[in-house]
Amino acid sequence: MMDIRAYLREKKGIVDEALQGFAPRHEGPAEEVARAMNYSLFAGGKRLRPILCMAGAAAVGGDERLVLPAACALEMIHTYSLIHDDLPVMDNDDLRRGKPTSHKVFGEAVALLAGDGLLTEAFALMARTGPSGEPEPPTLLRVIALIARAAGYEGMVGGQTVDIVSEGKQVDAATVRFIHTRKTGALIAASVVSGAILGGGDEGRVAAITAYGEATGLAFQIADDILDIEGDSEKMGKRVGGDARKRKITYPSVLGLEESRKIQETVLEKALSALEGFDTRADPLRDLARYIVERKK
Amino acid sequence: MMDIRAYLREKKGIVDEALQGFAPRHEGPAEEVARAMNYSLFAGGKRLRPILCMAGAAAVGGDERLVLPAACALEMIHTYSLIHDDLPVMDNDDLRRGKPTSHKVFGEAVALLAGDGLLTEAFALMARTGPSGEPEPPTLLRVIALIARAAGYEGMVGGQTVDIVSEGKQVDAATVRFIHTRKTGALIAASVVSGAILGGGDEGRVAAITAYGEATGLAFQIADDILDIEGDSEKMGKRVGGDARKRKITYPSVLGLEESRKIQETVLEKALSALEGFDTRADPLRDLARYIVERKK
Repeated sequence: MMDIRAYLREKKGIVDEALQGFAPRHEGPAEEVARAMNYSLFAGGKRLRPILCMAGAAAVGGDERLVLPAACALEMIHTYSLIHDDLPVMDNDDLRRGKPTSHKVFGEAVALLAGDGLLTEAFALMARTGPSGEPEPPTLLRVIALIARAAGYEGMVGGQTVDIVSEGKQVDAATVRFIHTRKTGALIAASVVSGAILGGGDEGRVAAITAYGEATGLAFQIADDILDIEGDSEKMGKRVGGDARKRKITYPSVLGLEESRKIQETVLEKALSALEGFDTRADPLRDLARYIVERKK
Repeated sequence: MMDIRAYLREKKGIVDEALQGFAPRHEGPAEEVARAMNYSLFAGGKRLRPILCMAGAAAVGGDERLVLPAACALEMIHTYSLIHDDLPVMDNDDLRRGKPTSHKVFGEAVALLAGDGLLTEAFALMARTGPSGEPEPPTLLRVIALIARAAGYEGMVGGQTVDIVSEGKQVDAATVRFIHTRKTGALIAASVVSGAILGGGDEGRVAAITAYGEATGLAFQIADDILDIEGDSEKMGKRVGGDARKRKITYPSVLGLEESRKIQETVLEKALSALEGFDTRADPLRDLARYIVERKK
């Protein structure tokens, strides 16, 4: 059994260093928006999506360094979604990871534009690293399409929309599943799958990793819901209980805490069994799935 | 001399038909955001950016039908920028092209997400049309990188930010030029340049078309500024004089109307002279530049 905390620390260091290299430059008249983009990009994220991308590449025997542009692009997309999600017209959150949210520091207009800038830069980053040869341009286009679809109206943006318009309403288990698989699950799945594709995995491996990614993404969001009830505000860097105050659709609110825990266990098993045909190079993915369910922040 | 109005009508028809095919599908739980995306996408735009993309391809002897995915992606990016720009935290506009703006119809949260969805879908569209062979994947990656850079913090998003943070302030001619070349000029230039690249233009042609595009983009925004003072509200589908009310940085507000008209003339000449080495296949680009300066809406 590997030490997941040491693993996360090591990979986070690699991602942070790569992100510094890819981050917007603070100069010229557009420095205000670059500053806002960087403020959120370096506000203390766990870098889970980039790490999943690297672990996906490693699981199929690929080079995890080769996926760093895509991995950092995924973090930019995740960060943009947090900035927009925190805006007053959305969740209206003042704190994120223990720091004031973007619009509290830069104002709503610049925060909105910083989110737009990060989303756009993610695609610029992926596309411009292509023509140099590796990864092959057709592979890179496939990954860009995959990530865009996961982030777009059929994925994260669609899930966010249903989440927002459902607030305070009675919904069924199918709707909460739709929200969770799209809002968080889609980008988490795309992270690990894009790693497997860029790492050179064959179609069978990519399909298995897709099953792993979808299950892990759902497990992640259920864990988030449970943490919002049982978590420690100090560790999480934000107030707990926010979901209930905002009458958010969550697994516990729709199905109860016990049932949510059972679903989480089933989903974790599904993630692990998807990796049955993989050797020890998939151990980071196995431990990441367990960590995602058991984490305390 | 070609009939520019007939040309614009014909090409708009081709773009509208292609856009219908590429537009988000209205089904399933995410239909609300798809409906909002389509509402703005089909709210009566002139399709100037897609038409410039097609004309850029034609000018270098390329097939204008081949650029339709990129052309429609450019229209999605333009439309997202209008939705976000109209939001209360930005320009707070209620009307666009004579119709209620997105947030007036769908609420601010869904409008924000519809913009995010369109920006993301633009990249999904460009990337997924690649692997089929034509255009070649490396060429397509180059175009995606070009468009992302033009739309991002170094281009449109950067220009919008400086525009917003400069409102009501005294600025110099360099700042108004920065705002205009980024806010509008960058995406207009990228439209025609991506057409020339996808159409198979060599580097010399692409450089000439880049000079044309940058000049035409700046001419477009100066024309917009002048129309906001002298235009006809009914023809434009929005109230004129909005820039002055919002204390926006415009060419006339910084340099006066006469000086702005002179700059516009110089810029138009620059656009036309960039095309001197081109044959009659560049006539649509020549007429488009004149139309952009002389249009009444």
